[in-house]
Amino acid sequence: MSFFGVLPYLVSPVAADGTVLVGVLDDLVQHLIGCGVHGLVPLGSTGEFAYLDDRQKRAVVDAVIAAARGRVPVLAGVAATSTAAAVAQTESMVEAGADGILAVLEAYFPVSDEGVEAYFTAIAAAARGREVVLYTNPNFQRSDLSLAVIERLSRVPNIVGIKDASANTGRLLSILARTEGRLKLFAASAHIPACVMLIGGAGWMAGPACLVPRRSVALYEAAARGDWKQAMALQRPLWRVNEIFAKYALAACIKTGLAVQGFAVGDPIPPQRPLAEAARQEIRAVLASLGAEGRGG
Amino acid sequence: MSFFGVLPYLVSPVAADGTVLVGVLDDLVQHLIGCGVHGLVPLGSTGEFAYLDDRQKRAVVDAVIAAARGRVPVLAGVAATSTAAAVAQTESMVEAGADGILAVLEAYFPVSDEGVEAYFTAIAAAARGREVVLYTNPNFQRSDLSLAVIERLSRVPNIVGIKDASANTGRLLSILARTEGRLKLFAASAHIPACVMLIGGAGWMAGPACLVPRRSVALYEAAARGDWKQAMALQRPLWRVNEIFAKYALAACIKTGLAVQGFAVGDPIPPQRPLAEAARQEIRAVLASLGAEGRGG
Amino acid sequence: MSFFGVLPYLVSPVAADGTVLVGVLDDLVQHLIGCGVHGLVPLGSTGEFAYLDDRQKRAVVDAVIAAARGRVPVLAGVAATSTAAAVAQTESMVEAGADGILAVLEAYFPVSDEGVEAYFTAIAAAARGREVVLYTNPNFQRSDLSLAVIERLSRVPNIVGIKDASANTGRLLSILARTEGRLKLFAASAHIPACVMLIGGAGWMAGPACLVPRRSVALYEAAARGDWKQAMALQRPLWRVNEIFAKYALAACIKTGLAVQGFAVGDPIPPQRPLAEAARQEIRAVLASLGAEGRGG
Amino acid sequence: MSFFGVLPYLVSPVAADGTVLVGVLDDLVQHLIGCGVHGLVPLGSTGEFAYLDDRQKRAVVDAVIAAARGRVPVLAGVAATSTAAAVAQTESMVEAGADGILAVLEAYFPVSDEGVEAYFTAIAAAARGREVVLYTNPNFQRSDLSLAVIERLSRVPNIVGIKDASANTGRLLSILARTEGRLKLFAASAHIPACVMLIGGAGWMAGPACLVPRRSVALYEAAARGDWKQAMALQRPLWRVNEIFAKYALAACIKTGLAVQGFAVGDPIPPQRPLAEAARQEIRAVLASLGAEGRGG
Repeated sequence: MSFFGVLPYLVSPVAADGTVLVGVLDDLVQHLIGCGVHGLVPLGSTGEFAYLDDRQKRAVVDAVIAAARGRVPVLAGVAATSTAAAVAQTESMVEAGADGILAVLEAYFPVSDEGVEAYFTAIAAAARGREVVLYTNPNFQRSDLSLAVIERLSRVPNIVGIKDASANTGRLLSILARTEGRLKLFAASAHIPACVMLIGGAGWMAGPACLVPRRSVALYEAAARGDWKQAMALQRPLWRVNEIFAKYALAACIKTGLAVQGFAVGDPIPPQRPLAEAARQEIRAVLASLGAEGRGG
Repeated sequence: MSFFGVLPYLVSPVAADGTVLVGVLDDLVQHLIGCGVHGLVPLGSTGEFAYLDDRQKRAVVDAVIAAARGRVPVLAGVAATSTAAAVAQTESMVEAGADGILAVLEAYFPVSDEGVEAYFTAIAAAARGREVVLYTNPNFQRSDLSLAVIERLSRVPNIVGIKDASANTGRLLSILARTEGRLKLFAASAHIPACVMLIGGAGWMAGPACLVPRRSVALYEAAARGDWKQAMALQRPLWRVNEIFAKYALAACIKTGLAVQGFAVGDPIPPQRPLAEAARQEIRAVLASLGAEGRGG
Repeated sequence: MSFFGVLPYLVSPVAADGTVLVGVLDDLVQHLIGCGVHGLVPLGSTGEFAYLDDRQKRAVVDAVIAAARGRVPVLAGVAATSTAAAVAQTESMVEAGADGILAVLEAYFPVSDEGVEAYFTAIAAAARGREVVLYTNPNFQRSDLSLAVIERLSRVPNIVGIKDASANTGRLLSILARTEGRLKLFAASAHIPACVMLIGGAGWMAGPACLVPRRSVALYEAAARGDWKQAMALQRPLWRVNEIFAKYALAACIKTGLAVQGFAVGDPIPPQRPLAEAARQEIRAVLASLGAEGRGG
Repeated sequence: MSFFGVLPYLVSPVAADGTVLVGVLDDLVQHLIGCGVHGLVPLGSTGEFAYLDDRQKRAVVDAVIAAARGRVPVLAGVAATSTAAAVAQTESMVEAGADGILAVLEAYFPVSDEGVEAYFTAIAAAARGREVVLYTNPNFQRSDLSLAVIERLSRVPNIVGIKDASANTGRLLSILARTEGRLKLFAASAHIPACVMLIGGAGWMAGPACLVPRRSVALYEAAARGDWKQAMALQRPLWRVNEIFAKYALAACIKTGLAVQGFAVGDPIPPQRPLAEAARQEIRAVLASLGAEGRGG
């Protein structure tokens, strides 16, 4: 299966005792597929990968794959500081049946370009032919992928895409120029999807698409057929969702918005705290302005 | 006169003894107007405003206005730390005959939102009806304009535009949403002009347009008529100029490129140093890849 | 047992297959205790806690406790993003017989002051009366402890100390003033130990003490008896070790230095890379300048 | 004359119309000399050098030199982005009779090490034998002096000292080690003076000494005679002044404190704003806790 279009970053609904809420995930996945999304990404930033242990991560991915029933591809997040842990996670996700891997380096000490390259190459090898998408987020991670490393990694056969969350859209155009068609480019929530599509992007992977899947798909389709006027008409109001997402802690924001829509996804994992009432009201207001307080967004 | 389209940030050619090279500026201005640019901006970042005294600044603007002969509008940069100095500079630029003011706050200590607002409002008052464009560059300045301050300043009648050099294109869309048509938006060199035009921008103000004025105008015209396919075809190679501009010190880079094209603009002002030979070769190569080693770019 | 004086941050020697090298740790612990250190800290930054899984962490602490045989206290590092994982680690370390806990918050998303306080309070409860030392390192972690949170945490009975790795020595004096004797203060490698002792510190916890334990103890003793002239005479040359430690990746630097001294601690854990030859030579030269190429430092 | 000990950074009292308040400066200088300070520094950060034009700067220095009547040395600040402006300012200060120059580089674009060295060397030449003290403040300036550049500059005969405002006290010890006695080291307000004296400092240059000159001199004298117990007893309460100085905008804070003590120094220069009432109360409370609401501090 191949990745393109709108791929929501799923939240990870977890009970207070740590149990993954499989039923809630199933509800969310059925809804999103019904709205036409092109794929699903469990264990991105919005999926609180940094707060889950290996067992919980696997339970989340198992639940998503079971719910998806092969109708759309599932790209499972892998994130670690050590190469050994990343390889073990990748093997687990392949075993679970993931269609591809979203690969993240969680540095603690600074890592040299050679170390970064070796880390992602090891994941690609462990993915045994599944497609791998690189993910770099300089805001939350302590490393970034240099253009030189991205270029080298783009030559690994099953490294097929990159999601860059730097908020610097110009960097995306530089990546496309350097990788000459070898990497598909996906927008993060910090970028304007219409702009990323204009410069040659393949779609976007982001938490906000959980809240406004139908409109996101409509925006993608307008952009894909080159109807930029319609794309911008859809884009302008949708940007409000990205704005609140940037303003409030990502997972907390999307979990709050999904709760407004009737998904029992619960609170963010401690020590993260539920959003204060003022933030909840603001999120509710943004959804209402889009007609998305219910499941119609 | 109104501002829109391609407005090159002019360099400030200065002899070793501090004399502004009026003839060189005239040569450059004739060339750029001949290439179809829509306006001229002396004393932006690329114009090394931070390295010139008040007398030199006035001499640069006098020379540009004389060379332009009213064919295109001239937007003169004003930049200071104190309100008093900014007002004095504005009065001098109005006296010189500038059509508008590009207003910059050069903070040393942190400034409160109230202080920022008062600073720009004082410039607007001193501009006596000339149009004022706000300029914010968080990379080189020690203050930034919050969205709340931008919204308040957008209600000052003669504050008509903003140039944001943050590299965060999403922020531009937020500014447009907040100011509801009261501010024209201009891209800086860190943004992809085609993307900024797509979201509703009015043009761009940047150093690179000095080096590739004809192609910049063609890109602007394609975007203005909604021909995004053609716009991106022009945009992709042009982005190389923005990339080297970001890689090398701005003024030094543009002065080097202009020297390649035969303009005797000289070196950047000390303690800035001329670029090393490797950088000069890289700039020359980028210009060559665009057919812009001469004055045809 | 109570913590004070020189507490080296131990490295974690791990074989390529992930096995903890118990014999090497024993060798190092015997040496350091023989040199007079006042305590041992496995699983600090230098101990590569961010690169070890729970099983490896426990194996490191088991080995250190067994080697120490109760002669000096062992403070075991606990570091997690989620409260649940931190509590589980703490319980494991208490079960292993650690005398105290060095507590670290590894944030991914920003955490509010309330969340930070809840996280450390949960560790203190899980420590069941063992002493807890807070550790904050704004360079490598994505959160910091505000003075207000430190003050509140200083009132938890078994939170007895803080190690602040901010490099801002003035902040340490502010912490001492705010906590009025309720927290012992430990210097990190970014601070000058003699200065921290002068303002009222209780000692230091840092990787460099692995390489120069005897001289570190002599410095501590001079400071403790108020012989500041002697303290500074010892401090000046020792600072060179802190300088190279800051220049090169912490764990890689200390592992390299220990290898020079004949401890078979191996390489840093991938994707970290062994230091290049020039760095190894520089570390060797610094040790030689202190007469510490062997085990006499 | 030589520089050492307590050298207060003087504020610049300026009327709303820009006139330098010579009488107020005279009042302040007489008071500080009466309290035993060892020198005076007009046009440091606290002196709002970034907000004054050349004429105002000269008026401030003229007033201070006249008031000092040769009883203590006067070190005049010079700060510019261009080498030409820095040289012109230096010549003006030498002409005014300053005993030495405090030299600051105000970068806009990044400057190479060679450019930094050339800038300060040009100031030293223009100082015609007067002593020059380097000043680097990475918090407010857009450049920093590398250790390599500091070492090279320490070999220029009349560059005799450095004030480093980085808050990183360890860096000061590295500077002392690298310059082997060729540079005197002065603490900034972000450092603990007692610590800087312990490691070999020659004194401090800072705004807070304006508010507590007698106690600052007593602290210096205790440290100079090696009575570290007494030095720390004086240091602890004095640190509160540095804490509020860091919390509130520097010039605004010192001007507020001096107003409490009866000096008519006025408000900070716009667009800086006077402090809000809560901040004024806090400053008053800190001064009261030290018995320094009047001129006895």
